[in-house]
Amino acid sequence: MPATPHMEHHFTAPESVRDVVIGMSDGLTVPFALAAGISGAIATNPHASQLVVTAGLAEIAAGSIAMGLGGYLAARTDIEHYASEREREVREIVELRDVEIEEVAKVFRDYGMTDAEMAPVVKAITGNEKSWVDFMMRFELGLEEPQPKRARTSALTIAASYVVGGLIPLAPYILLSDVQRGLYYSVGVTLLALAVFGWVKGRFTGINPFKGGLQTVVIGGLAAMAAFLIAKLIS
Amino acid sequence: MPATPHMEHHFTAPESVRDVVIGMSDGLTVPFALAAGISGAIATNPHASQLVVTAGLAEIAAGSIAMGLGGYLAARTDIEHYASEREREVREIVELRDVEIEEVAKVFRDYGMTDAEMAPVVKAITGNEKSWVDFMMRFELGLEEPQPKRARTSALTIAASYVVGGLIPLAPYILLSDVQRGLYYSVGVTLLALAVFGWVKGRFTGINPFKGGLQTVVIGGLAAMAAFLIAKLIS
Repeated sequence: MPATPHMEHHFTAPESVRDVVIGMSDGLTVPFALAAGISGAIATNPHASQLVVTAGLAEIAAGSIAMGLGGYLAARTDIEHYASEREREVREIVELRDVEIEEVAKVFRDYGMTDAEMAPVVKAITGNEKSWVDFMMRFELGLEEPQPKRARTSALTIAASYVVGGLIPLAPYILLSDVQRGLYYSVGVTLLALAVFGWVKGRFTGINPFKGGLQTVVIGGLAAMAAFLIAKLIS
Repeated sequence: MPATPHMEHHFTAPESVRDVVIGMSDGLTVPFALAAGISGAIATNPHASQLVVTAGLAEIAAGSIAMGLGGYLAARTDIEHYASEREREVREIVELRDVEIEEVAKVFRDYGMTDAEMAPVVKAITGNEKSWVDFMMRFELGLEEPQPKRARTSALTIAASYVVGGLIPLAPYILLSDVQRGLYYSVGVTLLALAVFGWVKGRFTGINPFKGGLQTVVIGGLAAMAAFLIAKLIS
C-alpha cells in the first residue's frame, strides 16, 4: 500500500485537537488578562485578591459555557445545514434533472473536457442517486458530511479546555493572598503556559512551533496589557 | 441562465456575517455574565458599581483582542496551510506521478466507474498541471482556496463586534450608579439584545429565527447564572 505513507504527509489535526486549541487559547488568555487588568486597578483594596479570584472564576464559568454551548450549537447547525441541503439535492435531481445533469457536466467542462469525453463519467455519476447527491454536495456546495455525534463531544472538550486553561493564570491569586505577588506569578506562569501551548499547537497545525509559541504569547500579552491599561484608566 | 435562481436556494451566510456572529455572540454573553456574577457577589461593597464596570471593560478589552487576534491567526494559518499543501501537490504530481494518477482514478472508481470509462476524464484532469492540482486540493484534501485579504478584515470585524456586543450589558452599570438597579436593567436589556441577535442570526444561517433567538437567550442566561452562583459561593 504505497498510498498510506504518502497520505500521512498531509497532516490535518483531528477535530478534538482543534476543540482543545479553541477552548484553551481563550481560556489561558482572557481570564489571565482580566485578572491582571483588575489587579492593577484595585491593588489598594483590602479584598483585592479575593475580588480578582471572584471575577476570574466568574469569567471562567461564563466563558466556558458561552464557548462550549456556542460550539455545540455551531456543530448542530452544521449537521442540520448538511441534512437540509442534502434533502434539497435529493429532490432536485428528480425535479430539476436536466439542470442537475448540466451542473455535473459543467464541473468537467471546467477541467477542459469535451462533451464526448465526459459522457461516461457524467453517466456514471448521475446513474446512481447516492453517488450523484454525494458528488453535488462535495463539488457544487463544497460541504463535507459532519460527524453526527460531534456536537456534544465538541462542546465538552471546548468547555473543559477553557476551564483548565483559565485555572492556570488564576492559581497564583488563589494560592497567594497578596495580589501583587499573585500578579507577578500569574504573568510568569501564564506566559510560560502560553508559550508551551503555542508550541504544541504549532506542531499540530503544521506551523513552525517557535512561531506558534510566539504568537500565543503575544496575543496573551497584548490582551493583558490592554485590560490592565483600561482598568487603570477608569479606576 | 436558469442556474442562477436555482443556486440562490442554497443559502450560505457571507463570511463577514459569520465574523459578526462570532464576535457578538461572545461579546453579548461573557461581559454580561461576568458583570452579573460580580454584582451579586460584591453588592455590599461601596464601590460595587465601579468595580463591575472596571472588570467588564477589562474583559471587553481582553476578549476582543483574544478573539480578534485569534481570528486573524486562524485565517493566516488557513492561507499558509493551503499554500503549503498546494506546493506539495505541485511537487508530487511530478515526483510521484503514478501514485497521483492512481489517486485521481480512485475518486472515479468510488463512483462505480470502470477503468475504461474513466480513462478520458483521468487523462483530461492529469493533462494540465493546474487543473490536476485544483482537483487534488478539492478532492483528496477537501480544501478550498482561502481569500488572501480575509485575515485582517476578519480580525477587525470580530473584535469590533465583541466590543459593540459587550458595551450593551455594561451600559446600565455605567449609567446607573446603583449596582442592583444596574443588574436588573442589564439583564433586561441584554436578554432582549440576545433574542434580537439570535433571531437575526437565525435568518442568516437558515435556522428558524425563533429557535435562534431562544438559543442565544438560553446560552446567555445559563452563563450569567453560572457566573452568579460561582461568585456568590466563593464570596
